[in-house]
Amino acid sequence: MAADTPDRIIVINPNSTEAVTQGIDKAMQPLRRKDGTQIECVTLKEGPPGIETQAHVDGVVAPLVAQVRARDNDAAAFVIACFSDPGIHQAREATRKPVLGIAECGIMAATMLGDRFGIIAIKNRSIPRHMRYVRALGLESRCAGDLAIDLSVVELSDEGRTYGRMVEVGQRLRDERDAGVIVMGCAGMARYRDRLEDAIGIPVVEPSQAAAAMALGLSRLSWTGKRTS
Amino acid sequence: MAADTPDRIIVINPNSTEAVTQGIDKAMQPLRRKDGTQIECVTLKEGPPGIETQAHVDGVVAPLVAQVRARDNDAAAFVIACFSDPGIHQAREATRKPVLGIAECGIMAATMLGDRFGIIAIKNRSIPRHMRYVRALGLESRCAGDLAIDLSVVELSDEGRTYGRMVEVGQRLRDERDAGVIVMGCAGMARYRDRLEDAIGIPVVEPSQAAAAMALGLSRLSWTGKRTS
Amino acid sequence: MAADTPDRIIVINPNSTEAVTQGIDKAMQPLRRKDGTQIECVTLKEGPPGIETQAHVDGVVAPLVAQVRARDNDAAAFVIACFSDPGIHQAREATRKPVLGIAECGIMAATMLGDRFGIIAIKNRSIPRHMRYVRALGLESRCAGDLAIDLSVVELSDEGRTYGRMVEVGQRLRDERDAGVIVMGCAGMARYRDRLEDAIGIPVVEPSQAAAAMALGLSRLSWTGKRTS
Amino acid sequence: MAADTPDRIIVINPNSTEAVTQGIDKAMQPLRRKDGTQIECVTLKEGPPGIETQAHVDGVVAPLVAQVRARDNDAAAFVIACFSDPGIHQAREATRKPVLGIAECGIMAATMLGDRFGIIAIKNRSIPRHMRYVRALGLESRCAGDLAIDLSVVELSDEGRTYGRMVEVGQRLRDERDAGVIVMGCAGMARYRDRLEDAIGIPVVEPSQAAAAMALGLSRLSWTGKRTS
Amino acid sequence: MAADTPDRIIVINPNSTEAVTQGIDKAMQPLRRKDGTQIECVTLKEGPPGIETQAHVDGVVAPLVAQVRARDNDAAAFVIACFSDPGIHQAREATRKPVLGIAECGIMAATMLGDRFGIIAIKNRSIPRHMRYVRALGLESRCAGDLAIDLSVVELSDEGRTYGRMVEVGQRLRDERDAGVIVMGCAGMARYRDRLEDAIGIPVVEPSQAAAAMALGLSRLSWTGKRTS
Amino acid sequence: MAADTPDRIIVINPNSTEAVTQGIDKAMQPLRRKDGTQIECVTLKEGPPGIETQAHVDGVVAPLVAQVRARDNDAAAFVIACFSDPGIHQAREATRKPVLGIAECGIMAATMLGDRFGIIAIKNRSIPRHMRYVRALGLESRCAGDLAIDLSVVELSDEGRTYGRMVEVGQRLRDERDAGVIVMGCAGMARYRDRLEDAIGIPVVEPSQAAAAMALGLSRLSWTGKRTS
Repeated sequence: MAADTPDRIIVINPNSTEAVTQGIDKAMQPLRRKDGTQIECVTLKEGPPGIETQAHVDGVVAPLVAQVRARDNDAAAFVIACFSDPGIHQAREATRKPVLGIAECGIMAATMLGDRFGIIAIKNRSIPRHMRYVRALGLESRCAGDLAIDLSVVELSDEGRTYGRMVEVGQRLRDERDAGVIVMGCAGMARYRDRLEDAIGIPVVEPSQAAAAMALGLSRLSWTGKRTS
Repeated sequence: MAADTPDRIIVINPNSTEAVTQGIDKAMQPLRRKDGTQIECVTLKEGPPGIETQAHVDGVVAPLVAQVRARDNDAAAFVIACFSDPGIHQAREATRKPVLGIAECGIMAATMLGDRFGIIAIKNRSIPRHMRYVRALGLESRCAGDLAIDLSVVELSDEGRTYGRMVEVGQRLRDERDAGVIVMGCAGMARYRDRLEDAIGIPVVEPSQAAAAMALGLSRLSWTGKRTS
Repeated sequence: MAADTPDRIIVINPNSTEAVTQGIDKAMQPLRRKDGTQIECVTLKEGPPGIETQAHVDGVVAPLVAQVRARDNDAAAFVIACFSDPGIHQAREATRKPVLGIAECGIMAATMLGDRFGIIAIKNRSIPRHMRYVRALGLESRCAGDLAIDLSVVELSDEGRTYGRMVEVGQRLRDERDAGVIVMGCAGMARYRDRLEDAIGIPVVEPSQAAAAMALGLSRLSWTGKRTS
Repeated sequence: MAADTPDRIIVINPNSTEAVTQGIDKAMQPLRRKDGTQIECVTLKEGPPGIETQAHVDGVVAPLVAQVRARDNDAAAFVIACFSDPGIHQAREATRKPVLGIAECGIMAATMLGDRFGIIAIKNRSIPRHMRYVRALGLESRCAGDLAIDLSVVELSDEGRTYGRMVEVGQRLRDERDAGVIVMGCAGMARYRDRLEDAIGIPVVEPSQAAAAMALGLSRLSWTGKRTS
Repeated sequence: MAADTPDRIIVINPNSTEAVTQGIDKAMQPLRRKDGTQIECVTLKEGPPGIETQAHVDGVVAPLVAQVRARDNDAAAFVIACFSDPGIHQAREATRKPVLGIAECGIMAATMLGDRFGIIAIKNRSIPRHMRYVRALGLESRCAGDLAIDLSVVELSDEGRTYGRMVEVGQRLRDERDAGVIVMGCAGMARYRDRLEDAIGIPVVEPSQAAAAMALGLSRLSWTGKRTS
Repeated sequence: MAADTPDRIIVINPNSTEAVTQGIDKAMQPLRRKDGTQIECVTLKEGPPGIETQAHVDGVVAPLVAQVRARDNDAAAFVIACFSDPGIHQAREATRKPVLGIAECGIMAATMLGDRFGIIAIKNRSIPRHMRYVRALGLESRCAGDLAIDLSVVELSDEGRTYGRMVEVGQRLRDERDAGVIVMGCAGMARYRDRLEDAIGIPVVEPSQAAAAMALGLSRLSWTGKRTS
């Protein structure tokens, strides 16, 4: 990190739902220290309320990268806080600061906590996208499975129902797919982490935390913004 | 991290060569902040001068884990600073604090900087051990190759000669094996990182830095010490 | 194919260079039959002159999908004629007609002609993108390597120079990476196929031809537009 | 395709059961056009009534390849219509025309319709043979599973019973193995495709159709008969 | 095997439980011939009563290798009879005689008897260790799963209860994970092999037998003690 | 092995060249003991002089399996002594005795001697066949490469020339493909093993020896003839 690089990590929530950004922000709390690296969570106003389809994923890339460019002088690192890691490779072209994706980092953190990880998705239709990404990372042999709670928007607004489905799906990943650790497949699940881990008895990774945690240190190393891919 | 957890990462060099520990310590400098997390580098006195054989790797496990136990109350996280990640799984049984290996973290950091990583080893005979570990991680499809500088101890004391061989091997990994990023396969190579990267023109990961950088943030998250493996 | 589906395959060149579209169109010639399926090649005016960066790839997705929607009633199938298969998954959300990517189809056709395929890229920086895609397809164990001719725009306008480099790279893929078949990693290489195959003595796949050839028949089957991914 | 190559695809059913050939022939109907490429389905008289064992697979190779040689001047391409793709590599030695296997093509078509494919086999003892082939193709990471309906010959003659088992097995592949698309693991299943797809709600690939569809276009390209494997 | 090499295979049980050694010794009976190669089973007195944790695995390495050195002149080959193959790579450094691990050999023998193998473990916590090893061997695509009977020490002393759990777990591996062959994941399970195979109807590999069987012949070949890893 | 099973391993050379059978027979010498298991090497008279093409491979299956049936009462195990393991799966259907292939066993033995194995083939056109088999075994991540000496029949009769090429190819596999162990990819190479190993300095596996060595012990175990694949 050059002398004039600001000591700030910018976490971009690519959907436009402020409540999700607030949930991420709250999840950042344990990573903050007085006078330490600042962690700023921002909402991508141009994003859809939630990122469910490939069109949503593709659609946020341009404004997200514009945001990265606009804030480049303010940041030591960027975190893309959507489990599809939208725009990660273009963002890496656009800045020499480290850009971390929550899927990438959540999955890598999970491999340190259990042998095979399971992913809890919100929607069934996200699963093929997740799996393509897991294979692109090269980590398919560590992936136990990816299952969705698959609730409607109305159902998702019922926190008890949502949590209940997460427990059910987590148990299936543990018992039927042999997952030793769970990765939450959405930045919006942060507030369920603690109780989910208690309920299913294996580690649960909140991927925004994983990415921001990795960004904290990696942003300080000069080599982490040089890339060939 | 519970309220009473000390804000200190302990980096254990499992060989007994103080100069290597000092090199690691110097490499930690960019990660340190005034009043920030302390990063303490310690030498495993019981270790051999260098870790070259499987006997060396296996031999340091017991004293290394003893060290982890002895310092458990002093640390928020441990880093094992030998590229074979000796004792990592036993150390994870011995403490609820995160234990990070420099091979594991160096390789994961590399996957964020280039598509396929090459490893520069000191000795040819370490390569099979490295490759077994890469496959155990599940990342063999991201590994371009692992080549050794293969110098004798006397030759290694010649810094110019050592650096020259590292450049040669790095170029072969880049040109003949299609590596887009290099991981230094030994904690003792830290001081060559900057000039090696300049010489070969692709990112070079110093794995002790990668592991300590990841430990900085992960040590602050309550879930990172819970493991099923 | 429903009774009212037009018997036409639309091949979209996502870059704005008409000469590339014309090259593709010429390559379609052997696939055409009098009174047979029509193969129409169109240029994406909104595209850049060439697709080299991730920004280029991401940038063509929206206009390309708009084109797919606009022509949906005119087509029995679509072919995306850029070796990064930009927007393929969003296009598949946007239409129930088959959408074929030239990378996907070129690679699959290659696996029927040789055991391991090599890819000839234009630019080095496209290689990581190609490799991520090969792994996402799950075919990395069939990929011998991906090497670029890496010429500047000026050099690329020199057909002899370009062809010479393609021969050199093809020979390296054959001799040093054990490729048994070559896939041309760019839709703009079509006119070099015949002589390249003669020069290097192993099959050379022109991927636009591969994709259009597969589209010819698949577009006639009712099930090929139903997708879960 | 040279000027004098007949515009005809010959689909060889390597078992001697005419009803199976007729079922394949009927499945070809959507691929045919008036004055278009002719698709001729032939029965291998020397074959067994059904191909169940490795001895059956191996036993049909010689007469099948003899058939390919005998009809070489009549065909632009050959399709081997048994899900074990018997004799495919020897047939490719015997002719310069494209030879397509229904397993190979059915699986590749499936990867364009869903992320992971499931295979429905007739007999349990075919599954190891299928799985060896999937790994030989390099596509094991895309394969969700292979399960058999495992009915006796008498039971198979009961169409309702057979269909019922196919639905059961298809649902298991979808729900317990996470298949997003189904490949019918036998050329004799063609007549069940439409209703099976309706019943299980994910795409169902009839592999003889997939192979003939690919053959339609590939047979017109000069390079598709040149092979190094 | 040089002229003065004793015709004796030494099988080392790295736990200190004599009853386990006796069970292995009994399992060796079919491999013995009058005047044939001697198979001697020894107990590692320094080992723990059972090997369950990574600390146990790591802890037996030093005395086990000491045993190998001490008996080097008495043996034509060594077998390490614990399913974690503890110390195998260090033992291979310590002697020029072949050193075979029961996990390695049990798994390889299984791949000759069924397409995908399932492993029955004693304890859940051994599973991540097994899976790391399977990936290090490169055979993860042949592994259907690894499930534990997970009984307490008291329960394990109840032979009927233990056998019942082995049947349950074996059936799950066969029916839910598609295992075509079972590998017993512990040297102490030898006495259950015959009846387990009868109960579940697929081959069951007793890995100590597999390793000793392979050692019988390999110990006679001059090249089998030369190693680069 | 039942009481009345003859203590004899039958090694079938599927080509008709007696000199090759004699070379294999000589290679068996170290495995024989006075009054020990008999190892009988037989020539398949119906085979071609050498097995080079897929037609050759497929063509020997029927007479080879006939031979297995004819000698079933005389053998405790069979070894198929051609590196394409022709007919191995049909032979396993035809007998309950263990059937071992020299490719399968040679490769598995190699994985115990080095991290990644290289294969020396006679002919280039055999390489795709070998690689398909390596992937079917699931061991592609252990395979460094497969290169051919590619000499004509006349050249092969020149022992010095043949040996010289084997050394060249072995060195390339070691130096350019990172092989730590070599597998001879043809049963006819047996007589070159010792000097080749001396010349290239890494272990060289003679696969007929590997297979017969494994057969020696495995033939004595009751479970090794039970198979689900």
